Amino acid sequence: MTGIDAIRAAAARARGIRRTPLLEAAGLDRIAGRRVLVKAESLQTTGSFKARGAWAAVSALPERTAGVLAYSSGNHAQGVAWAASAHGVPSVILMPSDAPAAKVAGTRALGGEVVLYDRAGEDRDALGARLAAERGLTLIPPFDHPEVIAGQGTTGLELAEQAGAAGVAAAEVLVPCGGGGLSAGIALALEAEAPALRVRTVEPAGFDDMARSLASGRRERNAASTGSLCDAILTPAPGALTVPVLSRLALPGLAVSDAEALRAMEAAFRHLKIVLEPGGAVALAAALFRPEAVAGEAVIVLATGGNVDPAMFSRALAGQARDG
Amino acid sequence: MTGIDAIRAAAARARGIRRTPLLEAAGLDRIAGRRVLVKAESLQTTGSFKARGAWAAVSALPERTAGVLAYSSGNHAQGVAWAASAHGVPSVILMPSDAPAAKVAGTRALGGEVVLYDRAGEDRDALGARLAAERGLTLIPPFDHPEVIAGQGTTGLELAEQAGAAGVAAAEVLVPCGGGGLSAGIALALEAEAPALRVRTVEPAGFDDMARSLASGRRERNAASTGSLCDAILTPAPGALTVPVLSRLALPGLAVSDAEALRAMEAAFRHLKIVLEPGGAVALAAALFRPEAVAGEAVIVLATGGNVDPAMFSRALAGQARDG
Repeated sequence: MTGIDAIRAAAARARGIRRTPLLEAAGLDRIAGRRVLVKAESLQTTGSFKARGAWAAVSALPERTAGVLAYSSGNHAQGVAWAASAHGVPSVILMPSDAPAAKVAGTRALGGEVVLYDRAGEDRDALGARLAAERGLTLIPPFDHPEVIAGQGTTGLELAEQAGAAGVAAAEVLVPCGGGGLSAGIALALEAEAPALRVRTVEPAGFDDMARSLASGRRERNAASTGSLCDAILTPAPGALTVPVLSRLALPGLAVSDAEALRAMEAAFRHLKIVLEPGGAVALAAALFRPEAVAGEAVIVLATGGNVDPAMFSRALAGQARDG
Repeated sequence: MTGIDAIRAAAARARGIRRTPLLEAAGLDRIAGRRVLVKAESLQTTGSFKARGAWAAVSALPERTAGVLAYSSGNHAQGVAWAASAHGVPSVILMPSDAPAAKVAGTRALGGEVVLYDRAGEDRDALGARLAAERGLTLIPPFDHPEVIAGQGTTGLELAEQAGAAGVAAAEVLVPCGGGGLSAGIALALEAEAPALRVRTVEPAGFDDMARSLASGRRERNAASTGSLCDAILTPAPGALTVPVLSRLALPGLAVSDAEALRAMEAAFRHLKIVLEPGGAVALAAALFRPEAVAGEAVIVLATGGNVDPAMFSRALAGQARDG
């Protein structure tokens, strides 16, 4: 199981990973009614935190590796393609054919071989197993993998230090959550480094499998696999490795609507000058628009990704312009 | 005259100033045909580098100050309003009535008292002089002021360190230029800390008063005062303090079109996930779309501001979408 030693080891190997800033703006504090600190992982190499876990997993492979394989709607894909290229390792990425064009193009540009499949009609796992067997590829799963969780946990090491420097010793830490790899990694890092910073997962309404799993004590599935704009964090069910960690360490999970995620994208544009995708903005949405659900004088938010098509981003900006 | 000692002193006083990241993306390197390093001052408090000079100037005032006055189309306004509020000093900001709504709103939200004037019909200087006399305000000019130049120069101290850490010892440093305060401050800092990093100003085509001044050896004026989208860097003429510094230290100036600035905004959105305004994107535009005008294996770019209205930002994204 991943622990603080694995996270520290991943941080020591993470040559290609950027230390992302912890941003603030008075305008966000006004909306939320408390101090808001935003860890901008959208500024990470490849545009999302996924580069961290991918780097950790690829850098832990034996030297002679035929290649790696990943399933992803986009951000994990780009992280794995980038980390593999940086290590001189071929990568094959299975992506749903309805993944955002920006993510498909981004993955190819980073050196990944993209294989598209039909999310509804094709058996992704069977396709992946066949490719892996034929070409001797090693699967790098998006969240349920000790090294991936350790890599995501390096975010928490930085956060503990940055929050301390900003004078925030105790706060809720809201994390956009798909399978829970980032949330679990951060929770483990904070347990060791800043135990009064407590993780809360944030999911799209209707896809709150993690929140329900934490409430019931067992892995709950989502009823649907599509139907939210937050493509980056739509997983069928949370991880086998992540649920036990978060059951032990996390506060109850939150969920927000797509409309709230879009409004949070506009707020991040206006006040922080950063680009977020819908799934990367759900934690900021919870901090801004569900203040009564959060406790404390300050709240910390993970802004996890910015790989969004221009049309979707303009839609977020236009929606807010209409509201005034 | 501002020198490296004044810049170091400004850095030592700059409690409220954020150290902004030096970002890179493989996609930008591909467009430019060389390595591109982007100092993202758009992520500075208030959304532009102007916070640096404003903080330096306000923090150098005597303790008992009735208030400060600034003329600005927006970014300097926000910087002064913010720095004054942080020091408990009232601020009055004269803004043209055609300034972007985001900048007017931003200035007010930061505690500045905004007085609008008609850019074509009213005498801004007379209005400012009257207000200053009536209320005992101290003028903080946008660029032609030793402390303002020193404050902007703190960007150069960070850049020298960050470029060294990134392995770039020699490169051209492209800087969006209005009156030349940032360019001069950075040039002075780099002269002391990293003399093989050489500043080049970048201006909007048709408003290249600094490039012409550097070429002729005297302060040249622009023919027009409006007619570019790059509102942040439309100055009638360069500074009396900045031209001598840049004549001694800078390489010849560059200019780009509004269309190129918009394309650079789209590239920054796509590859770096940051929000730039047109005037903040001109140096990136030169790096990406005028590669033949630049020398060296790497180029450093200042991305100076992100205070842009949603409609203008969407226009930049849509333009690029049409081109494919």
